[in-house]
Parts: sequence; structure tokens; C-alpha cells
Amino acid sequence: MGSVATMVCPGATEVRSAVDAAWEDFFTVQGRAAARDGLPGEVVGTLRGFLDSGGKRVRPVLCVAGWHAGGGAGLPGAVVRTAASLELFHAFALIHDDVMDDSDTRRGRPTAHRVFAAFHRDGRDRDSADRVGGSAAILLGDLALAWSDALVHTAGLAPARLAEVLPMLDAMRTEIMYGQYLDVTAAGRPIADVGLAWRIVRYKTARYTLHWPLRIGAALAGAPPAVVGALSAYARPLGEAFQLRDDLLGVFGSPARTGKSRLDDLRDGKHTVLIALALQRVGASQQRTLRAFLGRPDLDEDGAACLRQIIMATGARDTVERCIRDRRRQALDVLDRAPFPPAVTATLRQFADTVTMRTS
Amino acid sequence: MGSVATMVCPGATEVRSAVDAAWEDFFTVQGRAAARDGLPGEVVGTLRGFLDSGGKRVRPVLCVAGWHAGGGAGLPGAVVRTAASLELFHAFALIHDDVMDDSDTRRGRPTAHRVFAAFHRDGRDRDSADRVGGSAAILLGDLALAWSDALVHTAGLAPARLAEVLPMLDAMRTEIMYGQYLDVTAAGRPIADVGLAWRIVRYKTARYTLHWPLRIGAALAGAPPAVVGALSAYARPLGEAFQLRDDLLGVFGSPARTGKSRLDDLRDGKHTVLIALALQRVGASQQRTLRAFLGRPDLDEDGAACLRQIIMATGARDTVERCIRDRRRQALDVLDRAPFPPAVTATLRQFADTVTMRTS
Repeated sequence: MGSVATMVCPGATEVRSAVDAAWEDFFTVQGRAAARDGLPGEVVGTLRGFLDSGGKRVRPVLCVAGWHAGGGAGLPGAVVRTAASLELFHAFALIHDDVMDDSDTRRGRPTAHRVFAAFHRDGRDRDSADRVGGSAAILLGDLALAWSDALVHTAGLAPARLAEVLPMLDAMRTEIMYGQYLDVTAAGRPIADVGLAWRIVRYKTARYTLHWPLRIGAALAGAPPAVVGALSAYARPLGEAFQLRDDLLGVFGSPARTGKSRLDDLRDGKHTVLIALALQRVGASQQRTLRAFLGRPDLDEDGAACLRQIIMATGARDTVERCIRDRRRQALDVLDRAPFPPAVTATLRQFADTVTMRTS
Repeated sequence: MGSVATMVCPGATEVRSAVDAAWEDFFTVQGRAAARDGLPGEVVGTLRGFLDSGGKRVRPVLCVAGWHAGGGAGLPGAVVRTAASLELFHAFALIHDDVMDDSDTRRGRPTAHRVFAAFHRDGRDRDSADRVGGSAAILLGDLALAWSDALVHTAGLAPARLAEVLPMLDAMRTEIMYGQYLDVTAAGRPIADVGLAWRIVRYKTARYTLHWPLRIGAALAGAPPAVVGALSAYARPLGEAFQLRDDLLGVFGSPARTGKSRLDDLRDGKHTVLIALALQRVGASQQRTLRAFLGRPDLDEDGAACLRQIIMATGARDTVERCIRDRRRQALDVLDRAPFPPAVTATLRQFADTVTMRTS
């Protein structure tokens, strides 16, 4: 799914290289310190492997766009390290997510807990190796979270600027933890609560993926209120559209393009706007079918096809498509009046298209 | 085990009340924000319950002792919030620890993942409720870690002072994650590697429990190098003694006093200095017995008695007791020449006695 990032901004490739170089430096320092102190090398190695395995770097790219929107110039080291820290925080979230979902693969490679289970298999039975793998991955996620902090703390920001950015990072973290909590606790227990589904969209994804990266980048540049307001107004609808598209792809997408099974979300019984709307609209007998099949770990392709049929028949899919179109429109309207440099406006316009129309 | 904290310092009770009040404030703000945004109240509620259920507050008390050692006076709000953040970080570590060990109780109450499993049991079978409970507790730990940051960020420290303290917190976190990683990956696979056991002691406990709280408190006061050096010299041996005593209590302690089973460490096959020494010294036939029994989840009291017998016969218990005595002596020698105010010296002297001679 490299297309999102490459189309984000003329300089997106540059941002990605700079970000990758920033944590390459950081990991080299950490790896050397560990070796010096007799600490195991596979910790840094596994985290580095995770980050090298792909990822769109959407958050760093948006952070830099926020920096430029706010009047920042070029690609200073402190901005790059702050942007890199957002991706390292994202790695934390994904590593813990994989543990919670007990996923085998991520980006086509074994997940961190599977890597560690194999690494520590010697002299253990499979069950206890799996337990050790899970524990080690929880700790790796914790470390990624702590190191995402360390990257910002050592970014070279002026102390006053640092003190301004930190509460934003705090707010971002609080929101995503709540979003994940809502997501995890709602899954597997399908209900017609559309409001809850929207809260999950906002907290788990929208604010964290668009709002905060843009806002933090803008803060680094000391952006004026008008710029900050326009960034927020752009981020709100588009962040929601981002997750709505994800939800649609999770059920109706082409696995060949997304690289993900389109059974997982249905098997997990993920509480999405799509599903909540369908449950709200469906008749009594199909209601029972939906409830019986959603969240079944053994759901097969036939059962899934039946679910898709019901969901489409309720019009929920069309409604979600319309929500995405409306939100894209709102975001583009904001850009029409936003006080951004033209290059930033062009970047964010293209990003709006890519996010809402992507097929992967 | 309230005795440790109350004896730590004439003002330890005061520190504890101030710290408890600090996160009471923090949680009230967070709880109100959550309620306003339609976010679930059980998140803050469960974390608050965890912190209210006990704990010695050793780290906050030592942080304040470091502050006084460095020339700080009284109990300013910024120092209290920084001290409180160390205890919140400790809560994070314990919550994740309980998930990793799949423990049922902590401080006589159900662990966070058990609380959440019960809370989200409705409409789920037991297995999936347990999975949701585990995921929710991982997220609660993540949130405790993020909030331990937020407490420091909003402590009201001068930006330059904050910028000085943050890298210390980063180093502390990196060390404990490595220590936990070593602990988790070494458990259940008994080997005679005494060096590894010492690394676990240092990273998992010693630096994190004594060194960093004292050093961070001192940094808040802008302590001169002589004070900082003396605090480190005091913390190093005593931090090790703290964990060595814990290891002995885990195997030989009185459950009635410690409130913990003295089978768990043996059943987990924890890699401690005690066990590594015993394995190093024992003859071939008893070596086989040790290896066969250590780490067996079904180890019973008879098997444990047999293990204790072998460990004592190797002299490992006596050696560890001597290590503790030597380290207490070293710490007290440091205090004899340390440039601390007399009240701080008295506090740290008493702390050395309590830590090394405790029975709970």
C-alpha cells in the first residue's frame, strides 16, 4: 500500500527516507548500548525488522505536511525525529494489536510474538514457547512506546517547544488507548449501536492518524491559530473516511490487493459503522442470521458471502460509501479556503483522494 | 508490607498522602473528560482500584529523598507529581506482569485482566471473556505508561528541568523492559548462568527501584555531582540486595507474612542468583532433580521442600544472605561519607536496614 504515502506529497519519498534514517541512527545507538551491557540483540533486531517490513509512514508524512502548513521550511532533524517517533508509536500499537488478536502475520511476515516464540523455542514445549513469545512481544511493544518518547525527547527541540508538543502526544495516546479499548471490548458481541461505532472510528483511527500528526507538525512550526483550525477541520472528516474505507475493504475488498483476508473482521465480529448500520436496519430473521454468524471464529467463505449479501441488502454499504464521499467533500472544501502554502494544499488534496478511493 | 515505606523517612506517610492526592486529582480530570466524551468509566476506575489496593510507594518516597538529598526543601507539587508518576509507571509494569504471568490476584484483589474479564463476560463464553480481559489489561497498562508520562509533563516543571529529567525516565524504562525481557525469556529453562541472573537483578529491579528514583529526585533539585555520585553509590548495592531478599522470600519466606505463595517462583522456574548458584554447585544427580522440578507448573509442596533442601545443601542460600549483608554494609559505608543533610542520611540508613532485613 505504498501508493498512499508516495502520493501524499511531492516530498513524501524524501520524508520516508529521512524518517527511516532517523531510527536507523537511534537503533544503532540502542543496539550498541545493549551489546556493551551484555543485553540481548534480538530486541532491537526484531523491532527494526518490524519497521523495515513495510508500512505507509502516513503519520510521519502528515506530520511534515503540518510543519510545512504551519510555515516550517525544509526537513530539519528535530522535525524528522518527531515524525519518526509517531511511526514508532504506531509500531507499538500494531505489535500489541497483533498480540491481542493472536495474529500470525503482519505485512506478510511473522508477527513479533511469533518471531520471539520461535527464537525462544529451544528447551521448551510449544505452549510455553508461545507464552514466552507473547510476553516478549508485549515487552517489545512497551519498549517501542518508551522509545517513541525517547526519540522526541532527544529530537533537539527547544525546551519550550518540547513542553508544548508533549501534552499533544499525551492526548493522542490517551485517545488511541480508549479507541482500542472500545474496539476490543465491543468485538464479538454485535449490537446496533451506531454511536459506539463512530466513537471507535474517531478514537482508534481518525484523531490518531490524521488530526494529531498534522497538529503536532504545525506546533513544531509555531503555526498560527487559523492554520491549526484549518488542519483540524480537514483532519476530522478525512480521518473518519480513512477508517470507513478500511472497514469496507475488510469486508468487501480484494484480498489480492489489500493483502489481508476479508474474513477476519467478520470472524472477529468487529463493531464497525457498516455492521452497526446493517444490524439497525435488518429485519428480525436476518437479524438472527447476522448475530449468529458475526464473530464466529470458524466462519467460512460461504457464511461470509451470506453476511455480505445481507449487509448490502440493508443499504449499509451504500450509506458508508456516501459517508466517505461526503467527508472527502468536506475535507476538500476546507482546503479551498485554508491558509496553507499551495504545495501543502496540493499534497493534502491528493491525500484526500488517495485515502478515500484506495482499493488497498 | 507498609513497613518499608513508613520507616523510609520521617515524612514518608506525608509523601504517600501527597502522591495519592496527586493522582486522585489526575484521575478525576481524566474521568471527567472520559464521561464528557462518552468513554467508558471502568478504565479509570480499574486503574484507580489497582493503585488504591496497596503498594509500598517505595519509588515516590525515594524520589523525594533524592530531592532532599540534592538540597530541595519541602514537598512542592511538581516534585510530588514526578514522584507519583514513578508509582504509576510501576503500576504499568505490574499490570503487564500479571497478564504475562496470567496471575489471578495481586495485593489480595483480582488482577486487572480478571476484573475486565468479569466486566465484559456478558454475552461471551468464558474463553472469549478471558481474551477480552487480557487485551483490555494490556491496554490499561499501556495507558498507565502513557499517563505516567502525562503526570510528569504536566507537573509544572520548568521546561529546562523537564528536558533534563525526561532522558532519565527514558533510560529507566529501557532498562526495566530489558530486565523484564531477560526475566521472562530465562524463566522455565534453568541454567547455571550466574552472570545472567545478576543482569536480571540489576535491570529488572535494582536500577529501577533505587537508582533512578533517587537520581530523578536529585535532578529536580539540581543536585551537585558529589550528591549524585553518592546516591548512585548507595543505590547500586542496596538495589541488588532488595531483589536478592525478594528472591529468598519467594522460596524460603513465610507466606503468612509475604502474602505470596512460596511455590510460584519455583513453579515459574525463575532465573535468580539463588537458583543459578545452586545449579552451578550441585552434583550431577541432584542437578537432574533440580532441572526436572524447576519450572514445573504442577510442582507440589513436597517437591518444593526437596528443592529447598538441595538449594540449602549447596550453600547457595548462605551465599545470597552474605551478598545481602555485604551490600547493606557497602551502602551504609557510602552514607558515612555522603554529603547529605542528616535527616536524609538517617532515612536512607533506616531504609537499608528495612530492605535487607525484611520478612515480607
